[in-house]
Amino acid sequence: MEFPRTEIRIALLAALFFSLSAPFCAAQSPAPAPAPTLLDRLNAIIGGGNSAWNPGQLATMERLRDAAIRDPYALNQLRYLTSNIGPRLSGSPQAAQAVDYVAAQMRALGAEVTLEKAKVPHWVRGAEAAELVRWPGQAPGTTRKVVLTALGGSVATPPEGLTAEVVVVDDWKQLHALPPGAAKGKILLFNHKFDKELAAQGRGFEAYVGSVVYRGAGPIAGAGAGAIAVLVRSVGGADYRLPHTGLTEYADGVPKIPAAAVTAEDADLLKDLAGQGPVQLHLTLTPQTPPDADSYNVIADWKGTEHPEQVVIVSGHLDSWDLGTGAIDDGAGVVVSMQAIHLLHDLGIHPRRTVRFIAWMSEEEGSAGAAQYVADHAIDFANHIGAVETDGGADHPTGIFYAGKPALGAWLQPVSQVLGDIGAETLVSAPEVGADIGGLTEKGVPSFAPVQDSRFYFNYHHTAADTFDKVDPHHLNENAAVVTVLAYALADSADPAPR
Amino acid sequence: MEFPRTEIRIALLAALFFSLSAPFCAAQSPAPAPAPTLLDRLNAIIGGGNSAWNPGQLATMERLRDAAIRDPYALNQLRYLTSNIGPRLSGSPQAAQAVDYVAAQMRALGAEVTLEKAKVPHWVRGAEAAELVRWPGQAPGTTRKVVLTALGGSVATPPEGLTAEVVVVDDWKQLHALPPGAAKGKILLFNHKFDKELAAQGRGFEAYVGSVVYRGAGPIAGAGAGAIAVLVRSVGGADYRLPHTGLTEYADGVPKIPAAAVTAEDADLLKDLAGQGPVQLHLTLTPQTPPDADSYNVIADWKGTEHPEQVVIVSGHLDSWDLGTGAIDDGAGVVVSMQAIHLLHDLGIHPRRTVRFIAWMSEEEGSAGAAQYVADHAIDFANHIGAVETDGGADHPTGIFYAGKPALGAWLQPVSQVLGDIGAETLVSAPEVGADIGGLTEKGVPSFAPVQDSRFYFNYHHTAADTFDKVDPHHLNENAAVVTVLAYALADSADPAPR
Repeated sequence: MEFPRTEIRIALLAALFFSLSAPFCAAQSPAPAPAPTLLDRLNAIIGGGNSAWNPGQLATMERLRDAAIRDPYALNQLRYLTSNIGPRLSGSPQAAQAVDYVAAQMRALGAEVTLEKAKVPHWVRGAEAAELVRWPGQAPGTTRKVVLTALGGSVATPPEGLTAEVVVVDDWKQLHALPPGAAKGKILLFNHKFDKELAAQGRGFEAYVGSVVYRGAGPIAGAGAGAIAVLVRSVGGADYRLPHTGLTEYADGVPKIPAAAVTAEDADLLKDLAGQGPVQLHLTLTPQTPPDADSYNVIADWKGTEHPEQVVIVSGHLDSWDLGTGAIDDGAGVVVSMQAIHLLHDLGIHPRRTVRFIAWMSEEEGSAGAAQYVADHAIDFANHIGAVETDGGADHPTGIFYAGKPALGAWLQPVSQVLGDIGAETLVSAPEVGADIGGLTEKGVPSFAPVQDSRFYFNYHHTAADTFDKVDPHHLNENAAVVTVLAYALADSADPAPR
Repeated sequence: MEFPRTEIRIALLAALFFSLSAPFCAAQSPAPAPAPTLLDRLNAIIGGGNSAWNPGQLATMERLRDAAIRDPYALNQLRYLTSNIGPRLSGSPQAAQAVDYVAAQMRALGAEVTLEKAKVPHWVRGAEAAELVRWPGQAPGTTRKVVLTALGGSVATPPEGLTAEVVVVDDWKQLHALPPGAAKGKILLFNHKFDKELAAQGRGFEAYVGSVVYRGAGPIAGAGAGAIAVLVRSVGGADYRLPHTGLTEYADGVPKIPAAAVTAEDADLLKDLAGQGPVQLHLTLTPQTPPDADSYNVIADWKGTEHPEQVVIVSGHLDSWDLGTGAIDDGAGVVVSMQAIHLLHDLGIHPRRTVRFIAWMSEEEGSAGAAQYVADHAIDFANHIGAVETDGGADHPTGIFYAGKPALGAWLQPVSQVLGDIGAETLVSAPEVGADIGGLTEKGVPSFAPVQDSRFYFNYHHTAADTFDKVDPHHLNENAAVVTVLAYALADSADPAPR
């Protein structure tokens, strides 16, 4: 998951997540009661009112849910994507390999596969190193390593590096309070702390939104203040000397200066030392930005029987950052979406409408793939019945985010009850539910995402530690169940979801 | 804390820690009752029997305990050692700087300071890098980074690195079960897992002892099997792609081969991929081993009033590994020991016997400083009344380990009761309590260490994340209280501790 690029989207996201009233821990399923018969259950789900689904369809949702919980397909696909293919940076050979791999897997299931071309950013991490060369208490002739990683999209320092004094501010307010020229020619560190307490309460996305603006806009603000490079305190919750990368931005008319994320520990150290006396850092970053690359969204249609022209999207993004192997961000989102097609195939289920799997390309570097899709399919939005995106990791889902008409909440009640068995019954309205389907949401396409436990996600997000072992197989399958049931429900309802 | 170098000591340590009957969580202090008067308390502590301390001395212990809990001296010293001086690798300029710094701090308190020379290992970490160059599923022309760090004392690879197939074994048994020649010319990975569950129960040292043998003896065993380099799975509990360094060993008559610790995640990956097909790694390690360096144990005597020739040692080790800043290993042990002298000074307390602060040098690389001390003071062991060492971090102490006569347990009861107020009343008999005072323990000197919460220690141990922020100020002060009270008790008792 990347942060939305415009400030408006950041504000929307903040409004969304701050509006969540139920913290994660309150959303657990209740203790199990004696099992009712299937007929009891289906009647209870439909209740006395109208429903978009008949008992047979609800029974199918239960079959899909239970199959998703048991089936190792999603986990096996994740293992291949992360362990065998590995990091899948936008524009890289591994991203291209992943496109071919996922397309082949979808073809093997009988889906109709299209690779839709998109020009995507191609940024290549180079050397990255930093060392203190002057600080209070320094032993003569010694230096000390500072742990950092270049931010995505950063320009390079000179090949031999640059050396400058470090100026530390905790936030925009402290930046604006600096004396004129105080940052001129310096390396400016934005030391804004990720709110670990908030994340521990299951409000990880709020904590993220509170800090990520410094990563996004820090280099612009720093260059405006005359700095020659910017460091940001890593946006994440762990304290294991682990830098978190992520996209940064430049603006026309403002010098592009190199930018990197230091670890929380190194940020603390720089602040402590700079408060005692002059601190100088030697910084070397040698990333390169070749021309934009040709890449693809992988699109795989499981054709509808009555309305093949009407599509329901299930999706995740196939690219990842390069430090880890992109297991939680967003291999998990891709494989739970693949699982939806796989289970429709294995169980021989053919909904009325088309279920369209999409593996988006280049979400991390600005969602070029998604933008291309919106451009290519502009005349066809009326036939986009719904869009599901999973891009918040693979921890336990407690329900469904929905963006669109308020009536969607009531309409989803039967689906919510089917998912109650796995503790995923909560329905949460939100203005926006995912970066790659945000363009569709804006066009009025009903949009959905699993509500996921975010307590641990930002410990690993955009780090070298985003690896296969971080995904709990059962939790992954719970997410696959949410996505698969939802995709089927949207694709087979009597009438399309309200819009 | 380093592991003891001989197998006998490993066996002893294992026996020690496996024999602990009370896991950490059971050793918390009970809920507070209404505060008794001081006289009530002192009478309760002494009880009806004989005691080595009179009520005035027990009141002094309570004053020292309370002062240690409040006083920021230990924390401030730790901040300087870690943030200003930084890593203090044996033989390094920073280790020399730390010797001078600590000596000056002790002189400032009026202690009698001696620098006792010792020849210590001087090993310098060079470049360290590894990448997969062949694996199942590899995209043509691509490589992948493997995260590792050289083990302390490792020899170098050729400057351009070496490339070989990776063979994975989980333990000695799997190594012995390999077909003849299977490891010849290969890179051998010992993939023995640190027992995280055991550590989570407060039995971190048992988990450590269960895995660290592969780090210590892996290169010897690997070379014996014909391998050209050895990797070990990091010995530690965290899952943040964090390699744990530590000392490794070579043996006469066996080729010295390069050795490094990979992260848990990279070990998992190598095992997974090697199970699917050939995996080749390019490994570059360029450490150097200059001649042994001159360094020093810092010794600071707070002279006894009646028996200045009788000494009670309070100690930690001043050297650290070079990846982090040695906050928990073992800056904490040094500063809580400094605090003992500081509080005796500030409170104007002059025990009968000498309290001897020692900052040991080169514990991590084999305890050369401690060995030198034993050699230099061999004729004086009778005057060594007791020795305290703190080298298990800075988390909450639950009591005191003691090594020596069983009678020490009963003798320490009054001290235990004074420490009960901070939840540190447990008394635990152990054959050995610390690497640097182990030589004194063997000679019959009553030996002591705080029993410390070990649930988190091995998440950070020997990593880049062993930094100042990992130390909780209150827990640090609790350890200072244990050490200070114990040092005073040993130095001012009517008769010396039983031996």
